[in-house]
Amino acid sequence: MERSFEPSARSRVKRFGELGHYDRAMIFQVLDCALIATIGYAIDGQSYATPTVFWREGDTLYWHGSSASRMIRAHSAGQDVCVSVMLMDGLVLARSPFNHSINYRSVMAFGRAEAITDRRRKIDLLDRFMMRYFPDRLETLRPTTAKELKATGVVSMNIEEASAKIAASGPTDEPGDAEFDCWAGVIPLSQRLGEPERAGDLKPSIAFPSGLGVYASGAVLDRVIGRLGSTKGS
Amino acid sequence: MERSFEPSARSRVKRFGELGHYDRAMIFQVLDCALIATIGYAIDGQSYATPTVFWREGDTLYWHGSSASRMIRAHSAGQDVCVSVMLMDGLVLARSPFNHSINYRSVMAFGRAEAITDRRRKIDLLDRFMMRYFPDRLETLRPTTAKELKATGVVSMNIEEASAKIAASGPTDEPGDAEFDCWAGVIPLSQRLGEPERAGDLKPSIAFPSGLGVYASGAVLDRVIGRLGSTKGS
Repeated sequence: MERSFEPSARSRVKRFGELGHYDRAMIFQVLDCALIATIGYAIDGQSYATPTVFWREGDTLYWHGSSASRMIRAHSAGQDVCVSVMLMDGLVLARSPFNHSINYRSVMAFGRAEAITDRRRKIDLLDRFMMRYFPDRLETLRPTTAKELKATGVVSMNIEEASAKIAASGPTDEPGDAEFDCWAGVIPLSQRLGEPERAGDLKPSIAFPSGLGVYASGAVLDRVIGRLGSTKGS
Repeated sequence: MERSFEPSARSRVKRFGELGHYDRAMIFQVLDCALIATIGYAIDGQSYATPTVFWREGDTLYWHGSSASRMIRAHSAGQDVCVSVMLMDGLVLARSPFNHSINYRSVMAFGRAEAITDRRRKIDLLDRFMMRYFPDRLETLRPTTAKELKATGVVSMNIEEASAKIAASGPTDEPGDAEFDCWAGVIPLSQRLGEPERAGDLKPSIAFPSGLGVYASGAVLDRVIGRLGSTKGS
């Protein structure tokens, strides 16, 4: 596996090019910290951007949905798509409107969506999807039925090209702008987990399981799932 | 203004249709709680999904960027786009893999992107953009220069069609599944603000301003900007 993706017209970071990255390690790290990607695609010439849960294995991204949904049907037919991920890390307040910005980690990945049609492979992928996000949980669950499996479409996309863009700094003001008497700096942002809420019909004897211990109240989601992703060894 | 958007083939919520909403009040509320939208569009037949900061005034969405960027140039030329917003509220853990889900508030809005070409209108919009997110801040900043204004492209999209999809519940398990001895419930998620980090060159005498008091450490971003959006009276 090459260490980097080759930047092309569609994947090269042009604005603030110094924030762009093409190496797999960096791109995979951002992808693995995100639970949701927004897929850009078209149906009959109409553009759509649909957010969905996804996961990565090697150079391949996977997502799933109702096999009857328009998106899954369109992707299953084989379609060039754009998978976009953004983690927001802060609001950057500068001394001029122009230099205000956002700190973020983002990835745009391009490739061809394809359906997973092999039944065994679909089962394996959905199992790994569950294990990737919720360790030790799968074996405790009521198994998937044949009907549920049929109702679920799984889509893969081999990453042909990708770039990451990472902004992580304080405000960059023009020379002299610091003389303006306004507050400047960064207001950090993070997606945090809250206190788990038990299902109404959950037996009182069932405690929050140790396998989900990483999802502790106050933890930062991207760190939790980034760590879970890196332990799966792909 | 009609109270609801008319659902069409592209905007109707088909999967879990009972979660779909077409009334403006609901759609606007979700849009106003989001800082980032992901825009779905195409250039030369290639689909893109690009996250960007946006804001709403009445039935119109606005975003901005470098006037030289591919996206802003494509949108400025007049193009049908899809503006997608998603706020993630929780992980829903059920007793079967199939019934695991996410709690979220999402909107998909469709319309034609157009450039704001009138200089005065562009200045007004950028001023209101700053005021919408950061009250009382604009007048403290170094004003935008003619060069900066020229380097900034502002795009508008009148919402032709839109739908919201809102999932906010505990796990929905099949009859009998609660007999499985696994934990079930919701792990809540929220995008939270951290302790403001002062710019390195900020004069010690300048305190965090009262106008930004809503951005207090620990506050939830979508509530903060939702509240700021609702006070602007549009």
